[in-house]
Amino acid sequence: MHLGVCYYPEHWPENKWESDARRMAEMGITRVRIAEFAWSRMEPEPGRYEWAWLDAAIATLSRHGLELVLGTPTAAPPKWLVDAHPDILPVRHDGGVLQFGSRRHYDISSPIYREHCARIVETMVRRYGDHPAVVAWQTDNELGCHDTLPTYTQAALQRFRQWLGQRYETIAALNASWGNVFWSMEYHSFDEIELPHRTPTDVNPAHALDFRRFQSEEVASFHALQADLIRRHAPGRDVLHNFMGFYAAFDHYAFARGPLDVAAWDSYPVPRTEVLPLPEAQKHRWARTGHPDVSAFSHDLYRGVGKGRMWVMEQQAGPVNWAPFNPVPQPGIVRLWTWEAFAHGAELVSYFRWRQCPFAQEQMHSGLNTPDDALSPGGREAAQVARELRNLALPADDLRCTRAPVALLFDYEAQWVVETQRHGADIDYQHIVFEWYSALRELGLDVDVVSARAEVGEYRLVVAPTLPILPPSVVEQIERGSSHWVFGPRTGSKSPAFAIPSQLPPGELQRVLPARVVAAESLRPSIRPALRFEEVDGCALRWRDHVEAGAATETIVRFDDGMPAVLRCHRVTYVAACFDQAVLHAVMANCVRAAGIQAMPMPEGLRLRRRGPLRMAINYGDRPQAVPASARAKFVLGGPVVGPVDVAAWIEED
Amino acid sequence: MHLGVCYYPEHWPENKWESDARRMAEMGITRVRIAEFAWSRMEPEPGRYEWAWLDAAIATLSRHGLELVLGTPTAAPPKWLVDAHPDILPVRHDGGVLQFGSRRHYDISSPIYREHCARIVETMVRRYGDHPAVVAWQTDNELGCHDTLPTYTQAALQRFRQWLGQRYETIAALNASWGNVFWSMEYHSFDEIELPHRTPTDVNPAHALDFRRFQSEEVASFHALQADLIRRHAPGRDVLHNFMGFYAAFDHYAFARGPLDVAAWDSYPVPRTEVLPLPEAQKHRWARTGHPDVSAFSHDLYRGVGKGRMWVMEQQAGPVNWAPFNPVPQPGIVRLWTWEAFAHGAELVSYFRWRQCPFAQEQMHSGLNTPDDALSPGGREAAQVARELRNLALPADDLRCTRAPVALLFDYEAQWVVETQRHGADIDYQHIVFEWYSALRELGLDVDVVSARAEVGEYRLVVAPTLPILPPSVVEQIERGSSHWVFGPRTGSKSPAFAIPSQLPPGELQRVLPARVVAAESLRPSIRPALRFEEVDGCALRWRDHVEAGAATETIVRFDDGMPAVLRCHRVTYVAACFDQAVLHAVMANCVRAAGIQAMPMPEGLRLRRRGPLRMAINYGDRPQAVPASARAKFVLGGPVVGPVDVAAWIEED
Amino acid sequence: MHLGVCYYPEHWPENKWESDARRMAEMGITRVRIAEFAWSRMEPEPGRYEWAWLDAAIATLSRHGLELVLGTPTAAPPKWLVDAHPDILPVRHDGGVLQFGSRRHYDISSPIYREHCARIVETMVRRYGDHPAVVAWQTDNELGCHDTLPTYTQAALQRFRQWLGQRYETIAALNASWGNVFWSMEYHSFDEIELPHRTPTDVNPAHALDFRRFQSEEVASFHALQADLIRRHAPGRDVLHNFMGFYAAFDHYAFARGPLDVAAWDSYPVPRTEVLPLPEAQKHRWARTGHPDVSAFSHDLYRGVGKGRMWVMEQQAGPVNWAPFNPVPQPGIVRLWTWEAFAHGAELVSYFRWRQCPFAQEQMHSGLNTPDDALSPGGREAAQVARELRNLALPADDLRCTRAPVALLFDYEAQWVVETQRHGADIDYQHIVFEWYSALRELGLDVDVVSARAEVGEYRLVVAPTLPILPPSVVEQIERGSSHWVFGPRTGSKSPAFAIPSQLPPGELQRVLPARVVAAESLRPSIRPALRFEEVDGCALRWRDHVEAGAATETIVRFDDGMPAVLRCHRVTYVAACFDQAVLHAVMANCVRAAGIQAMPMPEGLRLRRRGPLRMAINYGDRPQAVPASARAKFVLGGPVVGPVDVAAWIEED
Repeated sequence: MHLGVCYYPEHWPENKWESDARRMAEMGITRVRIAEFAWSRMEPEPGRYEWAWLDAAIATLSRHGLELVLGTPTAAPPKWLVDAHPDILPVRHDGGVLQFGSRRHYDISSPIYREHCARIVETMVRRYGDHPAVVAWQTDNELGCHDTLPTYTQAALQRFRQWLGQRYETIAALNASWGNVFWSMEYHSFDEIELPHRTPTDVNPAHALDFRRFQSEEVASFHALQADLIRRHAPGRDVLHNFMGFYAAFDHYAFARGPLDVAAWDSYPVPRTEVLPLPEAQKHRWARTGHPDVSAFSHDLYRGVGKGRMWVMEQQAGPVNWAPFNPVPQPGIVRLWTWEAFAHGAELVSYFRWRQCPFAQEQMHSGLNTPDDALSPGGREAAQVARELRNLALPADDLRCTRAPVALLFDYEAQWVVETQRHGADIDYQHIVFEWYSALRELGLDVDVVSARAEVGEYRLVVAPTLPILPPSVVEQIERGSSHWVFGPRTGSKSPAFAIPSQLPPGELQRVLPARVVAAESLRPSIRPALRFEEVDGCALRWRDHVEAGAATETIVRFDDGMPAVLRCHRVTYVAACFDQAVLHAVMANCVRAAGIQAMPMPEGLRLRRRGPLRMAINYGDRPQAVPASARAKFVLGGPVVGPVDVAAWIEED
Repeated sequence: MHLGVCYYPEHWPENKWESDARRMAEMGITRVRIAEFAWSRMEPEPGRYEWAWLDAAIATLSRHGLELVLGTPTAAPPKWLVDAHPDILPVRHDGGVLQFGSRRHYDISSPIYREHCARIVETMVRRYGDHPAVVAWQTDNELGCHDTLPTYTQAALQRFRQWLGQRYETIAALNASWGNVFWSMEYHSFDEIELPHRTPTDVNPAHALDFRRFQSEEVASFHALQADLIRRHAPGRDVLHNFMGFYAAFDHYAFARGPLDVAAWDSYPVPRTEVLPLPEAQKHRWARTGHPDVSAFSHDLYRGVGKGRMWVMEQQAGPVNWAPFNPVPQPGIVRLWTWEAFAHGAELVSYFRWRQCPFAQEQMHSGLNTPDDALSPGGREAAQVARELRNLALPADDLRCTRAPVALLFDYEAQWVVETQRHGADIDYQHIVFEWYSALRELGLDVDVVSARAEVGEYRLVVAPTLPILPPSVVEQIERGSSHWVFGPRTGSKSPAFAIPSQLPPGELQRVLPARVVAAESLRPSIRPALRFEEVDGCALRWRDHVEAGAATETIVRFDDGMPAVLRCHRVTYVAACFDQAVLHAVMANCVRAAGIQAMPMPEGLRLRRRGPLRMAINYGDRPQAVPASARAKFVLGGPVVGPVDVAAWIEED
Repeated sequence: MHLGVCYYPEHWPENKWESDARRMAEMGITRVRIAEFAWSRMEPEPGRYEWAWLDAAIATLSRHGLELVLGTPTAAPPKWLVDAHPDILPVRHDGGVLQFGSRRHYDISSPIYREHCARIVETMVRRYGDHPAVVAWQTDNELGCHDTLPTYTQAALQRFRQWLGQRYETIAALNASWGNVFWSMEYHSFDEIELPHRTPTDVNPAHALDFRRFQSEEVASFHALQADLIRRHAPGRDVLHNFMGFYAAFDHYAFARGPLDVAAWDSYPVPRTEVLPLPEAQKHRWARTGHPDVSAFSHDLYRGVGKGRMWVMEQQAGPVNWAPFNPVPQPGIVRLWTWEAFAHGAELVSYFRWRQCPFAQEQMHSGLNTPDDALSPGGREAAQVARELRNLALPADDLRCTRAPVALLFDYEAQWVVETQRHGADIDYQHIVFEWYSALRELGLDVDVVSARAEVGEYRLVVAPTLPILPPSVVEQIERGSSHWVFGPRTGSKSPAFAIPSQLPPGELQRVLPARVVAAESLRPSIRPALRFEEVDGCALRWRDHVEAGAATETIVRFDDGMPAVLRCHRVTYVAACFDQAVLHAVMANCVRAAGIQAMPMPEGLRLRRRGPLRMAINYGDRPQAVPASARAKFVLGGPVVGPVDVAAWIEED
């Protein structure tokens, strides 16, 4: 695994570059990401390019053996471009036009902006595409960040109308698909269609969902425009984008079907835990470490998006600036996060950033070095990881991640469906997915997060925490395969056109699990239907489907009020509600057992993970824990007892 | 009582209409509301009308003996009309223009829109006005829904200026009445007046109140424009509008002085309970049934608005989609709600809707049938009511509601005054009214909710939970009548011009209750002035008037700090604060006793109600309850013990 | 001390003026503020002035010996002026234009509005400037109230660009200072700069801070424009402005370096306590009295702003209308507040208002009289103070406030820095300052609140609760003086250009306290690092600096996790976190002791204060308290035991 760092030579006097590069190399960093955000330095005036500074920076870094990841600068168009074309500015849901003065002040659908992006990217990649030290290219930066997606511009409207025209061909087809007869919403031409916002009450959810699909494709084509230029002029280099954790405003699987070699992502476990919709007690418990499953979930998801190739492009290395509360992370946790990324298959962990920038928006965001050029606590931990990595002599080809026993189906459309129609105020798609993921991880299991449209026939267990629009491939795979499948509430509740399926939910799943969901309810926090499952007392929370089981379907457990809670037909299980943690874990354990998988319940904060021949234990908890290694295990990192905020790695001599 | 249903033939293939109509008739439904929202099908292009589908739908339904209520489609103008006249779109308080894409996207004050409404309504009513199956007409749908009132358009501004000109004649009179000398707000002409919004701090409350009065009249005239056309072309048919529960943005009593035969309203007890400002414990307790007084209050209010004629145009028949949380209602409660409506005098209960619509905005709103055409649980309960109704042989003319012993005064201006000047963040007019209503109902009493301007001399007890602008008729009736009167805090605190009366509150009430309110205070939730009244310990909440009693006025009880809490002068009682439930009930019981009315305190969830000779008991609670029937009572529904979520009806053989 | 009152003759019939004036004089009022807000009466049409009414009002009041404070009417421009120049309207942060209809509907940067202000003020002051009864002039009213600062108009933008041009001379200098290379925010000319709002994410904090500085100067120059005219035409009269409590949108010290004789402020202890970010328990405890340190803090601050001359221009005299909850104040508290103002050096306490105005926006705001012309409870307490004052025969020249033992450094830029970059959601500059002030006051100490740029060499103890931008004068004074200094967290954390200092925080303070703040963290409310200091167990809250102490710096106390909590180097102490009340008090007591000051811990609600030879005890609490007077003390008000909501004053016969 490479260690990397994000570096902004333009922020520092040129006479610091040499010592920066030397110190990076000395501490074991091998890759450096530079240049995203530097458009105003690359092209200070329209058409006048300045590359000398970047030439020099690249030369300095590469002289010390550092490999470079170059970022295109399109996340921050310069003022002269905005002034020349004010209509490239984005528009928020409320109709407000966003202004220059921070970043991401552009409309992803603007043809003018795309033209300028192509121009700067092509110029840049023609210059550095064949530079031997430049090994990879990142497009833009964190596409969609700061809620800039969806965007409600006139350009988006024009392209949305075209997109709809291609999708539906006739306006009658669109009217029928959306159900526009409801409330006289019928159109006579695609040119009559508006963007789905600023209406007196809810927009048609079918309208909203198609707009999300359109915007998702816009993001992919915006990236592809740049990536194609990179492919052409920088042959053999890795093309990547740095995605975000728990961000689902566009379909990353579809995005990755375009030109993308690596799924890179930006990992900030502490602020992410603060902003996720987790219970208050969990936010408190893991305030200084991040929740033990927060990074792992994104690692496992992006490893899937990248078809096995995953990088952490930005790794939190100390306190940050952007959550409501920003504590200093626990000592040791930066090292733990790095090893955890390794365990989950990362090819690179790149710390953000080399040195805390004392000015502008991110001055309260730490780095490996303090502004006065001393290693920060996180910097010292990164150096330790580098030393440990050097001593960890393992053949590289052994280290590919093997298939996990469990696949968890993730679906971006599910996110958009639930956002469009929460039905209950506290319903959040990724929260539900995360609870299931966490339950499986607490059983000691590796999990592959895969697209709901993926082939999963080789997994022993496939779980779909909720999957409102059921892809046809799912039922087909159930029918022809031998995996065990577990589906959560709301599964099959919508057609692709955002309508209730004619046979009622779970729709086509009824072919393998005869049952009708005759009603669904969202539950205020005080309403908690009780049940008892395998000695565990607990309750439903937030959501409950009311299911009528068909004859072939067994009701595994009922709520105290008689309503089915979990149903099963052969290898297919339907979980009819969101449960509290205790019941959810019991249900997951039951399904894991039914699938013939050996579970190993974890003490608080401990997690296991295999990478190739390596078995690793990661301890987020406060107490030392014995790892499940045999007496013959050969430890390559740590030993049989893993301390608090520590890791161990071993190979079983089978 | 009729049972009805809301039906949208345009949502379904024509080949389903026949079986739908047959099944409706078979299950005991006699009336069907159709056609509101169908403008885009009635007039797909400007001036091109299509009536064939509606002809066919009406023919099919009437062939099965069903009577029809036709709705005018003006709540959902089609896209071509909006595109031709974008200035008919409404404007929110914050100045944002609302767009096409849902419903209610129109400005009630727009002369152009009114012209188009008149045109479509006249065309429609000329066609179906004398159809023998069409027995009633509904104008528009839920006027004001989705916070579309008030609206802040240029058309509203122009008409508001005219309205003010007529009301005040000279600008000097307006300046004097509003007190515009304060903060140099004086105008020189009516054309200088702006709409009361988007000011740095509070607008002049007199300005705000007049704007609310103006908008209220706009709503009434918008309805009257349509209703007059219906009267002209559909003679003898009932004209109605479907009002909403706990909605008071316009004066329903004034509205009903125009062309209106029936006050219909839309009853959704479960989501209404969720969104009302009730204590959390009550929202929890009644989450699956609705609060036992929520529907009853609106029944009693709309029976008054309709001068005795009240319909439930939409009755919740299962889970809905629009509250923050949407649980499935308790089994049996749809039947209970229907019988409760009957008990309170409904001539019709019409369920919403025939079949859950699988597409568009309301797909998560249940109906009598699931989308796959099976009766829903609510549908089965409706069928049961129909059977019970058929077996309930009673002469119709016996069933008019008789006068209740207690009149509760309701006032729409009170709502606007309190909204304009809450003074305390948690002060809500309808909440206060509801608490008093509930206290009286828990004493086993029938209550008539009547206009604060009504003649109430024949009631033994008249209560006004709060009545900031005291109509002159109130004091006149006290002086010449023999009723007992109880007034709550803030009564008489404002003149019609929204000023403090010169003699201080309670203003003219001082003629019958000598007392000055020298100060009023709103109380943070933690500040709860204590008192003890008739063995009950409790406190004030939210609001307290500081009263100096005149010589003729007795202070019935004081707060522990010495401040008068309840004052009385002969037949007039003044309640100087909002109380907690225990004290409020004790005070109400005292007043009921003083008025010589026999109270009967109810166990939790049980309510009584008389309709003609029938006495009914409605049990929202969890336990069986003995009903207060004599040994000679003749039960026509249920028996002497009424189970949980059940009803009983009997006649006392006097 | 004078007692005054705010009076609006234009609100009342002229025939009431005479009796009003007489009753004022009889009750002991000597000064009356009039005329602010009366522009529409002074100039009903453009250029047509009407002074007769004001002539008459002044004549009537002065005939009764009352002295007058005249307010300029510019806080409420009349409608005709707004209609003639709609671009004088202010613009909010979200871009919304505010409208006519309340007050403060003007843009402080508008050249047109400034021209009209100069015109009306000059006309007014030419007429009344030499009137013998007019002793003082107030400019405008509560500048910045209702969040009208900052304002985001085009005029503000034009003037901001000019201001930046003057400050930075070259755009390169600005780009360098702001760090605009970050995110390509570089400009090529001052004309490219936008106002710092409506960006996708945070604006550059350096941009935001300069905008706040600019707006602060705009406020000062707006006042100075009027004040210079007053100086010219009303020689010898006091010029003042009525500031607000806990309002820091502009730099009052810089403002007061312009033409200002007296710092007047408007004191509303009860609503201020309700809206301050205090803990809920404190808001509850002091709901009817105001927190015992809320008024005192502003007295002490404005006494400093006014270089010793402080007036209370508006004193709450009963319940008000503008907080979320508005209780009636405790009996006796209006008298207490008045004496408290006296104790803190007020030359005048002017009650708001003479009589509650029954109409318009403030009708729920009480006065000395109820609208029916009876003295309110507050009015009776004011009359009592007047009697007591008359009996309190003391030579006036003795009553100047002497220097307190402790100076507390206040800094308006600190407010803007913290607002721009809270870092933690609950971080509030004035809350931190208030906690330190309160801790010192509970130790029985007088405190002078002074500018962070002031000379403080004569104080034994100087405390800076937090001072992000450290003025150079501070370290210079430490180095050459002998005071003890205590600094709170975040001190020295920013350069004047809003960047982290190159040597890390606390920046230049390292010269006298060798230590590096290597990280800073904001803490969610549940994260409370524990510590024990001098037998007191407690914790940090909200914020903690991670400090590495230099060799010469002693760590007085550490957190349980080993992190330094309080550090000291000779006479300089650094407090590295916000603490809970118990620990904060222990730390303050330790510093007070170290400075050789005698503390006297107060029981709940009791406060002491010296004014000249007088010692005063002010009891906000519920219980009688013995005052710390010697046996030989001569009481001039009250006695040796001061009752609840009461005061005592004595002179020690030394």
